[in-house]
Amino acid sequence: MIRVAIIGASGYTGAESIRIILRHTEAKLTYLTALPEECGATEDVFPQFKGRCNLQIEPLDFKKLSGLADVALCCLPHKISMGFVPKLLDAGLKVIDFSADYRLKDTAIYEKFYQVKHTDTANLKRAVFGLPELFREQIKGKDLIANPGCYPTGALLAIAPLLKEGLVETDSIIVNAVTGVSGAGKNPSSKFHFPNMNENLFAYGIGSHRHMPEMEQIAGEIAGSEVRILFQPHVGPFDRGILSTVYCQPKGKANGEQLLQLYNDFYNDEPFVQICKNAPAVKDVAGTNYCHLFVSCVKGKIVCFSAIDNLVKGASGQAIQNMNIVFGLEETMGLK
Amino acid sequence: MIRVAIIGASGYTGAESIRIILRHTEAKLTYLTALPEECGATEDVFPQFKGRCNLQIEPLDFKKLSGLADVALCCLPHKISMGFVPKLLDAGLKVIDFSADYRLKDTAIYEKFYQVKHTDTANLKRAVFGLPELFREQIKGKDLIANPGCYPTGALLAIAPLLKEGLVETDSIIVNAVTGVSGAGKNPSSKFHFPNMNENLFAYGIGSHRHMPEMEQIAGEIAGSEVRILFQPHVGPFDRGILSTVYCQPKGKANGEQLLQLYNDFYNDEPFVQICKNAPAVKDVAGTNYCHLFVSCVKGKIVCFSAIDNLVKGASGQAIQNMNIVFGLEETMGLK
Amino acid sequence: MIRVAIIGASGYTGAESIRIILRHTEAKLTYLTALPEECGATEDVFPQFKGRCNLQIEPLDFKKLSGLADVALCCLPHKISMGFVPKLLDAGLKVIDFSADYRLKDTAIYEKFYQVKHTDTANLKRAVFGLPELFREQIKGKDLIANPGCYPTGALLAIAPLLKEGLVETDSIIVNAVTGVSGAGKNPSSKFHFPNMNENLFAYGIGSHRHMPEMEQIAGEIAGSEVRILFQPHVGPFDRGILSTVYCQPKGKANGEQLLQLYNDFYNDEPFVQICKNAPAVKDVAGTNYCHLFVSCVKGKIVCFSAIDNLVKGASGQAIQNMNIVFGLEETMGLK
Amino acid sequence: MIRVAIIGASGYTGAESIRIILRHTEAKLTYLTALPEECGATEDVFPQFKGRCNLQIEPLDFKKLSGLADVALCCLPHKISMGFVPKLLDAGLKVIDFSADYRLKDTAIYEKFYQVKHTDTANLKRAVFGLPELFREQIKGKDLIANPGCYPTGALLAIAPLLKEGLVETDSIIVNAVTGVSGAGKNPSSKFHFPNMNENLFAYGIGSHRHMPEMEQIAGEIAGSEVRILFQPHVGPFDRGILSTVYCQPKGKANGEQLLQLYNDFYNDEPFVQICKNAPAVKDVAGTNYCHLFVSCVKGKIVCFSAIDNLVKGASGQAIQNMNIVFGLEETMGLK
Repeated sequence: MIRVAIIGASGYTGAESIRIILRHTEAKLTYLTALPEECGATEDVFPQFKGRCNLQIEPLDFKKLSGLADVALCCLPHKISMGFVPKLLDAGLKVIDFSADYRLKDTAIYEKFYQVKHTDTANLKRAVFGLPELFREQIKGKDLIANPGCYPTGALLAIAPLLKEGLVETDSIIVNAVTGVSGAGKNPSSKFHFPNMNENLFAYGIGSHRHMPEMEQIAGEIAGSEVRILFQPHVGPFDRGILSTVYCQPKGKANGEQLLQLYNDFYNDEPFVQICKNAPAVKDVAGTNYCHLFVSCVKGKIVCFSAIDNLVKGASGQAIQNMNIVFGLEETMGLK
Repeated sequence: MIRVAIIGASGYTGAESIRIILRHTEAKLTYLTALPEECGATEDVFPQFKGRCNLQIEPLDFKKLSGLADVALCCLPHKISMGFVPKLLDAGLKVIDFSADYRLKDTAIYEKFYQVKHTDTANLKRAVFGLPELFREQIKGKDLIANPGCYPTGALLAIAPLLKEGLVETDSIIVNAVTGVSGAGKNPSSKFHFPNMNENLFAYGIGSHRHMPEMEQIAGEIAGSEVRILFQPHVGPFDRGILSTVYCQPKGKANGEQLLQLYNDFYNDEPFVQICKNAPAVKDVAGTNYCHLFVSCVKGKIVCFSAIDNLVKGASGQAIQNMNIVFGLEETMGLK
Repeated sequence: MIRVAIIGASGYTGAESIRIILRHTEAKLTYLTALPEECGATEDVFPQFKGRCNLQIEPLDFKKLSGLADVALCCLPHKISMGFVPKLLDAGLKVIDFSADYRLKDTAIYEKFYQVKHTDTANLKRAVFGLPELFREQIKGKDLIANPGCYPTGALLAIAPLLKEGLVETDSIIVNAVTGVSGAGKNPSSKFHFPNMNENLFAYGIGSHRHMPEMEQIAGEIAGSEVRILFQPHVGPFDRGILSTVYCQPKGKANGEQLLQLYNDFYNDEPFVQICKNAPAVKDVAGTNYCHLFVSCVKGKIVCFSAIDNLVKGASGQAIQNMNIVFGLEETMGLK
Repeated sequence: MIRVAIIGASGYTGAESIRIILRHTEAKLTYLTALPEECGATEDVFPQFKGRCNLQIEPLDFKKLSGLADVALCCLPHKISMGFVPKLLDAGLKVIDFSADYRLKDTAIYEKFYQVKHTDTANLKRAVFGLPELFREQIKGKDLIANPGCYPTGALLAIAPLLKEGLVETDSIIVNAVTGVSGAGKNPSSKFHFPNMNENLFAYGIGSHRHMPEMEQIAGEIAGSEVRILFQPHVGPFDRGILSTVYCQPKGKANGEQLLQLYNDFYNDEPFVQICKNAPAVKDVAGTNYCHLFVSCVKGKIVCFSAIDNLVKGASGQAIQNMNIVFGLEETMGLK
């Protein structure tokens, strides 16, 4: 039985991780931590767990932790996480880190987008980008996994076959994405106050979203050459899901049916990636670890569609998928 | 042309009042005020008014105000309002006050429910409760109108005919109501953060909601004797509207069709109260000043249904209806 | 491994049953049936199951069925079900029936509310009402379980402690409930067309809802005497959940804290019933088999609050809870 | 007083037209028609108009019509409309036609996308495309206006300044748009059944949406040369609004601030087009005839954002704006 600690358990990805581990047959929660002001009985912090989880969420105590857990799902925010991860590793735990701190290999880019000096470059170098469909072999047995961002997960799965096969121009990819509001986290703000966000839809992060360099780095690794992505996120009036609509310029002539065949072949053995016969819908993947894809040719361009749940395949589900791989468990455990 | 000032214009009822006055043919906005930190061009505070209103929202200056407006829509919160209303009156303006400060005639009850001493009992005495369908004659020409609470508006219109005719027991009325989230105001909070409130529904204010004594006072005035009301509010995942379902014990034998006839007669000349042939829906009154009513007999009880828009008939629309009456304009101006 | 057939698998309760059984560790789906025009690969009928279930949904063939399954979750509609259940029993299966056909013991009441003659009174007599928290012992090992209606589940759990203890008048109980739209089933209609239902809320079934006699029958069994319930359902703009607000007249003097203690004691050993410290919210039980309860005293009345997911504890989850009991499995299997 | 007939009044654009004309000070409704099965008192067909409109919606009778109205808002569907418009013109009415039948000047394209022969090419030739911001002068005094499609309205306003100034490549424009569900019309269907559409978002009409050639035709007129547009529509879980995100390749070097200045100049005198300081939100234009625009430069591309209400600026509001122009009224009447 893998013993799981969740560091930063009081946010949405913490709750989602709890939900999934509660029905994992080979893993169990042993330690939940949060900032002191967010601690308490799990069922008081999250009423949805009333009668389902009798752990306390408590302030992190590294001494206590080291004897209690085999792995930490580290749900801390960007910039904060890199202050904790080295100590989690020192305590002998495997770490699945949800933040961006171990995703961007180029610290100059990290420091530009996150406006802070990177303080743990040693671990950064050996962290593996935890997108199992592309990097499964590297993930196995590793002790530090950088769990991908929600938008990069959806977008990269959508274009990986094209990049791998060198079928599209790499300087003109456009990722237009719409996320549900849980992507904004649990802190109340005017923008996401129900009467403001309900019945609303708008773009944000124009030209500046931090997931843009992350997408470009991994896309470049897949393509084997630099990739340039215009990423434009939006937020819409629903809880969960990201729909990515990706526009690419094919190098030669593209054909929709052949592309669908390519996608089916590429993801043939992947339990969590499904190729649809038409446009995917975010509701069909809500609450699951699945990614639904479709690809088509329109007006000389290739248009890819990708739907994931931002909190599951885009965060906690993928983290547990990574955990399963790291520990040699069946990859789909707790996620079916 | 009536010149209208809105005091406390930066909240939801302020915005709704602006929206209505903008299309009023005999009234115009001349002065909008708010706390300093919420001031600015109207179109910056409320992007929905871009190109529609070129006033600034500015800190209240009584000197400036007195030459600029004939009436103040006072959208200040409970407890705050009674500090401003005397000065607005002194400045020579008619005042339609949105707060509860001038609604409860019994200061002991006010002080119990609002936990503060009433500081303007002189004006309290002469304020008229601005529910035009019941108190139209008293409203005409008055200079201080206490605009009713949103829940009392819906509930009182639902039961007025029964109380007036003495058809129901007055010690066992139950008002079960569900409001849209705009009723909670514009300040962000965890409860009303979109991912928490969306797809949700819950009760609140159990046994303690401040609209309970307000309902009881006015119901008592209508009935001519004390009325006891169990009022249970809920909030649901929509922007606007209050649906009240009211359960009453008839004194004698009740008959649904006769009750419908009574309601039709009672509200026959009322432009904004409509008797439906079946259960009303909040969406049918959203954005309007209308109240849709239905009444039925079930299992020996009378069940009344009432739908209003909490921001219009429950606040700004009713305020402007009152303003129209006070100034002798056609009552429906700006509200059709 | 219990082999499960779902009869009428193409509706919302069918889908929800599939979702739950897919992660049940001691049960597996072996046969899914529907009307011919609704058959096909499960993943085509329900895209959310793409890659998760490779069964076909096919027309019911009793011969095939008898060798394939140990239990039938019979999700057929009222009136239709009683034509199939005898044959399912004859085929040697245990049956958990989702319809109302085996719930109302008094066929006169059934025939009045469902406007059809009951054609299987023999089985009706031995069917057990599948509300495990109240009738667990009777359910064990039985071969025909009448799975309760969604509204009765929520309301009965809310008032059972009061009725059992004889604390309230049984002639004046009011159940005011709001359901999410999935309760209306999957067939499109104007009322539930998104632009009509979104941002809406309304009452329906005034004085005539079929769950009223079902509540009264079971409430009567609990109380040991006739119980009269005024049940008023509403539908609100969310997918899942029923919030019931129940108003009762206490026989003597009631006290909120004592009632909470009573509820905590009454449901102490129940895995799926949780007593909250304040008003429950439907979102906290969405997607789960839990019922969250709260009780309070207001203005001389007892007000109970109950939240369930109408598709889980109100339908498929409860059915599988019943299945677990019938087969002697751990009651919470697949439902945690 | 302009007398207005609405032909096909029983749908969403009919209702929205009724709503707007009811508060138009120089126009009044005199005749409402629909298919026989959709006729009845307006307040029965549309409960939101209870007490606000006492007209009957009745089957169209051309004889009756000719004496009753000066203008017809023809809300009939594509393909049907061209059978009625000639008779409306013969009856001496000005016609604002909501369908696509008079928008596409090239009947070959019309016949390809609508799969039917055009039967009124004579009137097609003289119909004016009713986008006032671009074709105001041609609209004045005309008797047949082809009211633009909802998507083309949003997209064309977004890119008109760029096309007019020749700033972007015309072979690679991408319009990514998300509409609210009212855009799908009032007929119930499984896709838009509340429990299916709520919390959902998906693409549709991939490569085949009928608004693509309409955009291309008008964009070509603005640019003075052929324009090629990849248009990808999506539908999201809200009632009203279209958010268009348009990606263009600038011919030379583009600069965000200069573009904003260009947009401000281009639309300087337009009452209904507002240039925002950041990304527009659909909720800010809901229920209004306004279009909110923003433009920015990202990664070498120009990205334009446009928000309209699909039922107002995208349909009924624009129709009444056109009506005002045709009759020489103030253009904003009824629309402020």
